[in-house]
Amino acid sequence: MTKTIKIGLLGLGTVGGGVPKILEAQAEKIKQSTGVEIVVAKGLVRDEAEKALRKTQFEIELTTNYDDIVEDEEIDIIIELIGKLEPARTFISRALKAGKHVVTANKDLLAQHGLELIELAGKNKVDLYYEASVAGGIPILRTLANSLADDGITKVQGIVNGTTNYMLTKMVEEGQSYEEALAKAQELGFAESDPTNDVDGIDAAYKMVILTQFAYGMNIQLEDVARRGIRHVSIDDVKMGQKLGYVIKLVGETSLLSDGVAAEVAPMLVPVQHPLAAIKNEMNAVFVESMGIGESMYYGPGAGSLPTATSIVADVVQIAKNIQSDTTGVPFNPYHLATKLAKDTQIKGKYYFAIKTPDRKGQILKLAEIFTKYDASFEQVLQQKANGEHARVVAISHTITNAQFKAIKAEIEQVEGFKLINTLRVLGK
Amino acid sequence: MTKTIKIGLLGLGTVGGGVPKILEAQAEKIKQSTGVEIVVAKGLVRDEAEKALRKTQFEIELTTNYDDIVEDEEIDIIIELIGKLEPARTFISRALKAGKHVVTANKDLLAQHGLELIELAGKNKVDLYYEASVAGGIPILRTLANSLADDGITKVQGIVNGTTNYMLTKMVEEGQSYEEALAKAQELGFAESDPTNDVDGIDAAYKMVILTQFAYGMNIQLEDVARRGIRHVSIDDVKMGQKLGYVIKLVGETSLLSDGVAAEVAPMLVPVQHPLAAIKNEMNAVFVESMGIGESMYYGPGAGSLPTATSIVADVVQIAKNIQSDTTGVPFNPYHLATKLAKDTQIKGKYYFAIKTPDRKGQILKLAEIFTKYDASFEQVLQQKANGEHARVVAISHTITNAQFKAIKAEIEQVEGFKLINTLRVLGK
Repeated sequence: MTKTIKIGLLGLGTVGGGVPKILEAQAEKIKQSTGVEIVVAKGLVRDEAEKALRKTQFEIELTTNYDDIVEDEEIDIIIELIGKLEPARTFISRALKAGKHVVTANKDLLAQHGLELIELAGKNKVDLYYEASVAGGIPILRTLANSLADDGITKVQGIVNGTTNYMLTKMVEEGQSYEEALAKAQELGFAESDPTNDVDGIDAAYKMVILTQFAYGMNIQLEDVARRGIRHVSIDDVKMGQKLGYVIKLVGETSLLSDGVAAEVAPMLVPVQHPLAAIKNEMNAVFVESMGIGESMYYGPGAGSLPTATSIVADVVQIAKNIQSDTTGVPFNPYHLATKLAKDTQIKGKYYFAIKTPDRKGQILKLAEIFTKYDASFEQVLQQKANGEHARVVAISHTITNAQFKAIKAEIEQVEGFKLINTLRVLGK
Repeated sequence: MTKTIKIGLLGLGTVGGGVPKILEAQAEKIKQSTGVEIVVAKGLVRDEAEKALRKTQFEIELTTNYDDIVEDEEIDIIIELIGKLEPARTFISRALKAGKHVVTANKDLLAQHGLELIELAGKNKVDLYYEASVAGGIPILRTLANSLADDGITKVQGIVNGTTNYMLTKMVEEGQSYEEALAKAQELGFAESDPTNDVDGIDAAYKMVILTQFAYGMNIQLEDVARRGIRHVSIDDVKMGQKLGYVIKLVGETSLLSDGVAAEVAPMLVPVQHPLAAIKNEMNAVFVESMGIGESMYYGPGAGSLPTATSIVADVVQIAKNIQSDTTGVPFNPYHLATKLAKDTQIKGKYYFAIKTPDRKGQILKLAEIFTKYDASFEQVLQQKANGEHARVVAISHTITNAQFKAIKAEIEQVEGFKLINTLRVLGK
């Protein structure tokens, strides 16, 4: 008789509901690769009302009491899909202490308390996997941990938030304003009524914390990610970017510099020929630069019921293999280095400056003098007449340090008659 | 003292030479993930002349006699980078029988004798890994075997031959002729002096055989891959394609249809908005359609010393982990189904027909009548005056079966005054 591995499923919503579907649809394939049958034995629901609803959808024993799951000795693996910090943190901790393997997609929790949970899993010799926490349907974490285990990663750039990528695609391709794009995203269910986590780049920053662990073995904090959202991206920036050969994207970047790691989430101008420029709507992609492979990219859906559930069940399948071969307890990411943050003088980039100037001769000269003062120069510069009174000057710098950028920005803000409308990072060397 | 795992390296050329470099550069990271040190203990060279050359490049014990390696009890893993069928097949067989794990990038051998070698590895409870055999630096095989172990794959489309992708990019972007593009590829070392394997799609077909094993667990033969190369792609086809919104690419495709698998390698018209359309020059990409994840794509270099060596060493790292946890002998791809080939009446696609017609009224009508006779219709049609005497009509059909396509093609060839210049598959539903 084939052995059965039993799952306790915390949360039966959009993603959770996909888990039993995938397990059923791919039962034969999963059995071939693991040698076992995997079933959802119990599901945790919020209250009696949800229980009544889920009963009509799933043939799974349901409970409103977590004790029924964590104290059930027959349950081997717990899948946490409640989200946010509590009670997820307590539930996962209790599961690990009870010797149960855990699969979660909880990026908020992993970015803020990942280390504590990873240690707890190690102490109890159980597995803690979380492939679905970054870029839902893209198997990027397992790829970094396994296929790039022998590569020196130097940079990871990701479009890891589907909501903002959908909004920016609408702004670029259909000329929609930020407000129109947000309303459309909310209408389609891509954006929540309070879109803060998405549009302010917090969700993407959580993912960059996790990607930094896998890429460099370093544990940075959310506060270490320089973060800017897309609220201040105007349709003018989008159009100026297009004129200069760029598409605007919310990019998360984590780089290994000579003195440490630098992580950033910000709207960036991506050159149209860069593979990330082609990632549209709610799709995600992670672009990796490494010493061995060079450039590689992993593309797929960042969210959605079945894609995310597929990632989660892939983690379950790996745990089932580990149980069968008695090799559980190895950390998902075994790579560790002492965490070091790069200094402002080491962090480099190209920058876009959009400035409202008086419509008179000599404005670009004035700007050039500031650049020269801080040992910087233009890669591209464009002046457009706005009306008789004002002009708009847009300049893209050659690569400069963060320190240079801040000094130039501060000086531009002091110039009589100049109004700095926006600045943006520009991808590229 | 840290345990050492020893490698015998067969071939120290472009790729082989990258292996000791990667092992040295990433020694610390590899040690963290495996718990062991991995070193190249011996290298096999062709003759004394090569030995003299390699001695100046590597600090590795060199031999011209394979016995020195396969009979060395201290060697745990053999990396085969000789290529082609013999002596690679004999060397790998002997290694597996001697209880040594094997890593190879040999697509020719795996596509033609993979089954025999996989069985031999299983019988001897050793590992046989070959990630680098398909799309060099892209970890597509391990991703299919692990991260998509719980997904139902329905289609795999790949740009898996860098030489032809480089040539077609030059034809599309710079208007070069086939001959000019080939000469340039040869000059840059992307194409060999006899380019048959690349331009006739044989190399890509080998890779589709291997991808079919991983995607569907089915063992098809090279002859089962419908194959057409790029020799007959003209600059006119390239330009017509561009006018209609397509980029021409050599695409390998393997699909799971209702009655079995259908595999094809052919120059295809790829819609400009399809992710594969953006894959340029010598880069590779594999696009996967599956029931769970939906659409995903894996992009990277298809060849080159360090990218390929990184894939090879990633296999070595996995074997080292398996040795440490005593879990060797599990097949790289554990998924198997009885092999079934789809019938012509089940294989469907859209097709481009380019026809030289007399420059008179009614030519498109005549073509439309043929389409209608076989229950087919146009999606796009374009007539261009070539000179006073002839016109060129290009039609793209809606989706039709292979059987319909063949019948329409045969009938067009019979029409008085029509000359069928070319036909091409068109990607899309």
